[in-house]
Amino acid sequence: MTLIALLDHAAVLVFALTGALVASRAQLDVIGFSFLAILTGVGGGTLRDVLLDRNPVFWMTDPTYLGVALAAAFLVFFTAHLIESRYTAILWLDAAALAFAVAAGAQIAETLGQGAAIIVVMGVVTGCLGGLMRDVVANEVPLVLKQGELYVTCAVAGAAVVAFAPLLGISPTLTILGSAALTFGLRAGSIAFGWSLPVYKSRPPRA
Amino acid sequence: MTLIALLDHAAVLVFALTGALVASRAQLDVIGFSFLAILTGVGGGTLRDVLLDRNPVFWMTDPTYLGVALAAAFLVFFTAHLIESRYTAILWLDAAALAFAVAAGAQIAETLGQGAAIIVVMGVVTGCLGGLMRDVVANEVPLVLKQGELYVTCAVAGAAVVAFAPLLGISPTLTILGSAALTFGLRAGSIAFGWSLPVYKSRPPRA
Amino acid sequence: MTLIALLDHAAVLVFALTGALVASRAQLDVIGFSFLAILTGVGGGTLRDVLLDRNPVFWMTDPTYLGVALAAAFLVFFTAHLIESRYTAILWLDAAALAFAVAAGAQIAETLGQGAAIIVVMGVVTGCLGGLMRDVVANEVPLVLKQGELYVTCAVAGAAVVAFAPLLGISPTLTILGSAALTFGLRAGSIAFGWSLPVYKSRPPRA
Repeated sequence: MTLIALLDHAAVLVFALTGALVASRAQLDVIGFSFLAILTGVGGGTLRDVLLDRNPVFWMTDPTYLGVALAAAFLVFFTAHLIESRYTAILWLDAAALAFAVAAGAQIAETLGQGAAIIVVMGVVTGCLGGLMRDVVANEVPLVLKQGELYVTCAVAGAAVVAFAPLLGISPTLTILGSAALTFGLRAGSIAFGWSLPVYKSRPPRA
Repeated sequence: MTLIALLDHAAVLVFALTGALVASRAQLDVIGFSFLAILTGVGGGTLRDVLLDRNPVFWMTDPTYLGVALAAAFLVFFTAHLIESRYTAILWLDAAALAFAVAAGAQIAETLGQGAAIIVVMGVVTGCLGGLMRDVVANEVPLVLKQGELYVTCAVAGAAVVAFAPLLGISPTLTILGSAALTFGLRAGSIAFGWSLPVYKSRPPRA
Repeated sequence: MTLIALLDHAAVLVFALTGALVASRAQLDVIGFSFLAILTGVGGGTLRDVLLDRNPVFWMTDPTYLGVALAAAFLVFFTAHLIESRYTAILWLDAAALAFAVAAGAQIAETLGQGAAIIVVMGVVTGCLGGLMRDVVANEVPLVLKQGELYVTCAVAGAAVVAFAPLLGISPTLTILGSAALTFGLRAGSIAFGWSLPVYKSRPPRA
């Protein structure tokens, strides 16, 4: 299995865990868990593949992705009560999945010969859209729009590594690992230490 | 008209009725009714066709689908006040549309030679996603995520019939009818008699 | 640049302004502004291109669309506090973007040789879906479903001009300008003077 395929499977698995955890907060049955796990796990990559016109989309070529997401759903259904704070678990798992998905998604666009702008967009789409679908369907405030937290910013930074590192002669493997590390590092700093960018204030302070 | 085309038209018609009924709860005008009716009627099948790379999508090949959804919108606009409980009407019509759409969607994937996993996914996508779009846009709690009810489960069961009945030598017609009957039967049992699967409880009872 | 390309760029720019204004109401950072601006700016046209199987989608062929949306995001981030009523600004900018997008989207379908029904649908999709995505993601009541206002109706009317004016021998340029003017005029009348169609009332007045 290539590094990309490994990251892609990891992203599906961990995003599926977050989808199932959201399902546990909504007290669904195991099929409801599976539905949200699959939607969250493959949603971003599916949109990426549709936009890039990659046919068939990744989980139709290799249905083990669906199996991975299902396994995550069943695992969470039977063990979520052991987790102290499901919200904290969702936050950190989502951060890891974001890192995996951004690196994989951006690298796929790079391999297809896309330019820097499209590489960054595909990293963001792969990383952010599955979680966004999860939050919109479950009617939670989307993580992507949480005030005072870095989220899309982490995805943009990680995907930019994939777009620009090759110009410096950095190897693909190192590029991908650096992309995932930067994405996760920024997001972790935001969750743990409150790292953020200045937000828009409707009434800026007077001088 | 083939059985599949018949079911597909029936699914669009009945889903469109539910979309229009949701529009009546939001007190929209007749064009608003038409918008929600078309979105709900063709949403699931459109996503199925995009994922399966069927070009053009079904209602572009045959715009009578749009006419059917429009007719449903106008019918509901002028008669919804005659219905005693619009919520009950939405529930039961949605159950019928789900059954038609799951059978048609799964059979289309089967005819394209897809494997069992993709057949089941396409049944679920065709059956569940139009209603999900309706509920998300109208900001209602998605039926697909209603606690303590069978919904996705019915779609999975019905689509599984299409995936596995051919292995037993069962004829396509019988398979499709069996798929729709099983989907509707399970959903009807859930609405009428409260059939459900065990849901996740954050604090499981102690022994 | 052709008239269509000009309208398409104008639609992306102005829709992106509305997305950024919604982001300012949610007090996001500048990357959050950019995310909502791009989603709103290119969302409708992207769906149109996926449905029409135009590959690659328009902003992948010409990434200046993304630059236009980004510029709108940064502009709003640094100037939105100067606007007296951001809600009013969103309403009117959205009306202008709707007009540009409906005309461009319908004309693109017309140029591809689609029939009247598909031309109208593509005008509505291009015009209404980007704003709908913005409102769903930001959890605002979708403009498209606001009670007692014309919205989808304006898009249908404008797109119908593109579908039928050529039958009268009217030139493409005049058709497109007429389409945008009718869409904007109807929407402006609805915002400014309360023009509307009769809405569904659950209890109609007795005679």
